[in-house]
Amino acid sequence: MAYDLWVNETLYDAWGQRFRVKRELARVQSDFQDIMIFESETHGRVMMLDGVVQITEADEFSYQEMIAHVPLLAHGAAKNVLIIGAGDGGVLRRVLQHKGVERAVMVEIDGEVIRLAKEFLPGIAGDAWNDPRAQVLVADGIDYVRKAPDASFDVVIVDSTDPIGVGEVLFTDEFYANCARLLTSRGLVVNQCGVPQMQADELRETSIRRGKAFADIWAYVAAVPTYVGGFMTLGWAGKDATCRAVPVATIRKRAEAAGILGTTRYWTPEIHVGAFHLPPYIAEHLPQT
Amino acid sequence: MAYDLWVNETLYDAWGQRFRVKRELARVQSDFQDIMIFESETHGRVMMLDGVVQITEADEFSYQEMIAHVPLLAHGAAKNVLIIGAGDGGVLRRVLQHKGVERAVMVEIDGEVIRLAKEFLPGIAGDAWNDPRAQVLVADGIDYVRKAPDASFDVVIVDSTDPIGVGEVLFTDEFYANCARLLTSRGLVVNQCGVPQMQADELRETSIRRGKAFADIWAYVAAVPTYVGGFMTLGWAGKDATCRAVPVATIRKRAEAAGILGTTRYWTPEIHVGAFHLPPYIAEHLPQT
Repeated sequence: MAYDLWVNETLYDAWGQRFRVKRELARVQSDFQDIMIFESETHGRVMMLDGVVQITEADEFSYQEMIAHVPLLAHGAAKNVLIIGAGDGGVLRRVLQHKGVERAVMVEIDGEVIRLAKEFLPGIAGDAWNDPRAQVLVADGIDYVRKAPDASFDVVIVDSTDPIGVGEVLFTDEFYANCARLLTSRGLVVNQCGVPQMQADELRETSIRRGKAFADIWAYVAAVPTYVGGFMTLGWAGKDATCRAVPVATIRKRAEAAGILGTTRYWTPEIHVGAFHLPPYIAEHLPQT
Repeated sequence: MAYDLWVNETLYDAWGQRFRVKRELARVQSDFQDIMIFESETHGRVMMLDGVVQITEADEFSYQEMIAHVPLLAHGAAKNVLIIGAGDGGVLRRVLQHKGVERAVMVEIDGEVIRLAKEFLPGIAGDAWNDPRAQVLVADGIDYVRKAPDASFDVVIVDSTDPIGVGEVLFTDEFYANCARLLTSRGLVVNQCGVPQMQADELRETSIRRGKAFADIWAYVAAVPTYVGGFMTLGWAGKDATCRAVPVATIRKRAEAAGILGTTRYWTPEIHVGAFHLPPYIAEHLPQT
């Protein structure tokens, strides 16, 4: 090649991943963040926000399957699902795969992320944007949960950036209190909580906040290749512990009924149940019960 | 800081991790490879061989626990253990933690790796070098397995570099045939098989080779932070399938008897059993049974 163009992820000051760039596809300073989409040599197209990898075509399935299928199948009867963030549409697509879902509301603060994802990453969301059950809003998630009626959703999925910058308000006491209020009786919230090897504070501090509004606080893990640093955690907040205690055979039956079984590349019923068993180096950051 | 010194891992041409270097501690061209040890800002001391991260002080426990405790506790009565590679001594230390182990032979081809690890990474092996049950040989692993008596070991752990360069001979048909011969009746081999998101060929091709000498071929996973790219796989070759089918409660009892329970930061009985449940994107690279 005539030139050698690399992008360095800047999430951490002194360690990180780098990609050789075939071609920059988009670079936009939106009202909220610096958005870049590029064609990598190794991972297909990649979207970065403020220098942090959000999604790559090569490994998005690992993250999307685990953040969407786990809460929906753990709940078992989710009809109304609220997605905060996730502007690429990948979570929306996985949520709408579930036959029992009647309504998926996606609230993304940055319309530019949606616009650019539709243009440059159309495979991530597929036809989800046009599904009659989908309601896509460009709005502030913290406002949305403030105004949402009581008991209007069964599951909330928070697919945000880390609790710095734009995403910070999605990890506050007020946000979780509103989530508890807008959820139905067995409702639950999952949200991305970073990579404990590098960001243990994120899991620890947000778990304490979730604990003020919810009875059942835990986390589950996924090994997402481009969220480098070993397991990432997905924070878990439930009104009771029943959704976390579902055995493999029941999860498999639910996945079959929902139309999920056999469609996945990372998620399986065994991996679903196993993901709640945390390595001690991660579990030590959760509130001790 | 007055300067900004980074090292880029060169395992893959167009993607990888980079570390900011506080201080280079050693840089040696041995008869076999380019060895570098440096103090990182984020992961303590790091050893690289030919530009590939082998071990960091911050996350070595994830890898060592999974490559050592899983085969020993799956076997359940391992007395004689052969370790190939692993010149830093970390696997040796974990193997010798098991009360039932009577002899651990470690065969490392590159004496410089052992020398430098003893000098600059003394915490990795701890006192293992001086354990009377340990026999540390600077020798070629392929020669050692050729000459080892029949049925002289219960478990073989191959902690090598990838099947390129120095490590290549540890993935041949001949090597596995000799392993089968030197193992006892329920014996098994585990070996590091790379990160399938990036190196699926490694798992696929070496599994086929293992299948020529062993009846039970599979793999298990570990999320090792600085083996970037999602789950790494540890290849599994057993004379029968019994060692893979041990339930959590039995593993826990064995770990308690062996003195392992409560000493680990990644491994738990649940994670042990769960690690054999592979995501479909990994399982598809194993020989179909």
